[in-house]
Order: sequence, then C-alpha cells, then structure tokens
Amino acid sequence: MYFSSIGTMGVKSGQRDAVISILTRSNPALADIGCLVYEVGGRDDDPNTVYVCEVWESEEAHAQSLELDSVKETIAEAMPLLTGDFGGYDFMVAGSPLRSE
Amino acid sequence: MYFSSIGTMGVKSGQRDAVISILTRSNPALADIGCLVYEVGGRDDDPNTVYVCEVWESEEAHAQSLELDSVKETIAEAMPLLTGDFGGYDFMVAGSPLRSE
Repeated sequence: MYFSSIGTMGVKSGQRDAVISILTRSNPALADIGCLVYEVGGRDDDPNTVYVCEVWESEEAHAQSLELDSVKETIAEAMPLLTGDFGGYDFMVAGSPLRSE
Repeated sequence: MYFSSIGTMGVKSGQRDAVISILTRSNPALADIGCLVYEVGGRDDDPNTVYVCEVWESEEAHAQSLELDSVKETIAEAMPLLTGDFGGYDFMVAGSPLRSE
C-alpha cells in the first residue's frame, strides 16, 4: 500500500530558499528505496514555511529512508535553519483516479 | 511550475469507503489536463476523514480540472457524503530530490 506523507516545516527568517535547495538536492537513493513522489516548495504568502509532499511505496520504505546516510546528512544540514515548528500528516493510500485498480 | 494540493475532507459516519471509491474511479481526463499525482486514502485512527495528495503541472491545470464535466460529476456524487469540513493547503513546487534540476 502506498504511503503519503505531507509536511510543513518552519524556517528561520530568510532561510527558506537555503532549506529548499538542501531538500531538493538530487538523491537517487530515495527512489531506490521506494520514494515515488517528493515535492518541495512554498507559498508566496508564507515565506517562513517549507512544504513537502511525499508518496512512498510503503510506510516501511519511508521509515527505511530515514536510516540512509544521505538523508541523515540532509536533515542535519537543514536542521539549524529550521525553527522546530513542524506540521502535516500522513495517510495510507487507497487508490488513485490516475490508476485503474 | 508544479503545483501541489493537499486536502482533507470530513465524511459522514460510515461513508469513507464510499467517498474513496468515488474519488479513485479511473479518470484519464485528469492526466490529460496535467494531473501528475492524485493519491486518495485515510488513516486507521481517523475513520471519518479522507485524505488527498495531488501534484499538477501547474496551478492553472488544477483550476481547469475543476471545469471538467467528469470532475464536476465526481464532486456532485461525493458531496452528499461529506460533512463540509475541509482542510489542507497548496503550494508551488520548487523542486524535488528525485529530479536533477
């Protein structure tokens, strides 16, 4: 069952673009471990928040990705630029109108 | 620029599966108009909410989709099963670690 994780993270003033560039740095290991969608971005009316939309082959694939050195390094690099204010939610995917299941 | 729309919708008691089945009915017109990702699902601990995660080629593609007869029919069919409690947010995508941009 696919797993979708949606997140918002508060960033310190002026650091949004730096955080986005860290999170969007190419990382083929993510697809290798089962990441299907990983979109990062923001809103003009919310300059101190980075938004992330992820879809994984499974909840386990998502959990395993957090053990990858490359992901640990990405998180460690971005963390000092974050405020610690996290939001979002995750859910199990039941289906999609883009796939005839 | 890609556009991501994340949503939650409250469903009347016992109607989650019915709403999911309406929203996941195959609709090729969505991809034709620029829908890249459209995942629908739920959480075990939140039986009266349907979660949706969408990514579109552009904000315009998303807006145009709402004018499609097939989408209007889907919304009309699901609406009586919904509580009217909607949540979520949308954002402009800056990039992805799955794409080397």
